[in-house]
Amino acid sequence: MIGNSVKQLILENEADFLIPDEKVAHVMDINPLNHAFLVLANVRYSKIPVLNKQGQFVGLIGLSDIVNAMFDVTSINADKLNDYYVKDFMETGVKTIQRPYDIEYLLHLMVDSAFVPVTNQDNYLEGIVTRREILKAVNHMAHSLESQYDVEKKELKEISRQYFG
Amino acid sequence: MIGNSVKQLILENEADFLIPDEKVAHVMDINPLNHAFLVLANVRYSKIPVLNKQGQFVGLIGLSDIVNAMFDVTSINADKLNDYYVKDFMETGVKTIQRPYDIEYLLHLMVDSAFVPVTNQDNYLEGIVTRREILKAVNHMAHSLESQYDVEKKELKEISRQYFG
Repeated sequence: MIGNSVKQLILENEADFLIPDEKVAHVMDINPLNHAFLVLANVRYSKIPVLNKQGQFVGLIGLSDIVNAMFDVTSINADKLNDYYVKDFMETGVKTIQRPYDIEYLLHLMVDSAFVPVTNQDNYLEGIVTRREILKAVNHMAHSLESQYDVEKKELKEISRQYFG
Repeated sequence: MIGNSVKQLILENEADFLIPDEKVAHVMDINPLNHAFLVLANVRYSKIPVLNKQGQFVGLIGLSDIVNAMFDVTSINADKLNDYYVKDFMETGVKTIQRPYDIEYLLHLMVDSAFVPVTNQDNYLEGIVTRREILKAVNHMAHSLESQYDVEKKELKEISRQYFG
């Protein structure tokens, strides 16, 4: 369990965690793969969210997924990107998070994901939380904890009580 | 400044931070770009280190750098990857870190980089530290701090002293 002092300091800038969906490039599951390739070539993220026709979050697609579709047995063939759709190569079963954030779960997901999609109860994408924002919050917490809190090792305190009352 | 309790807990598993260079795929600056493309298509990292002929660290190359080399004015042309070398498209001026780690500097670099190359004094690559390892260490710290330390808000303690002596 994460204690209150650490939790509060990490969540102090919680409002900055979300990169809202209108600022996050996405593609549709029914887009051809070469469209996704063009989009991914022009954004800074190596993966982006995939939405269905209703606008709901259904998965992620990354440059490396697409690149793998370009390989023939012996050569690289970009024309093959016209033959497939995003839904043929996207990653599904992606874990999402809802607001208000469960910071323990979010930090846990962040170990294995460059970003976590934030969805509402109907599975519409609200945005993403990236490792960058979380690491900024962790830095804030690490730098602030001992200026805002008295922190004393438990055993030492116990020993000190025994000897000095 | 990061206080000692936070620092010690983050560094408790410091030995696990480094992914040693023999486990990290890399390319040479004089390799053709299609070689780097094949390597990057087969690893889980979106960027990998670039070494010079002497084996020293000189930069990073990512799938997105290479993909940008594939664009003609109107089409995607994988053949262009034969015309260029890694050194034509790699990212240079990359910040590195040395051991023993300065944890404040490392956490600072991690905000903007998926991983930080670890070099020795002669600029040979010893390995990389990734956000994954750092986030694991941060999780350990966040979960352990209040079980190993007594943490008390400074103002509250002050108020309590004033009123209750």
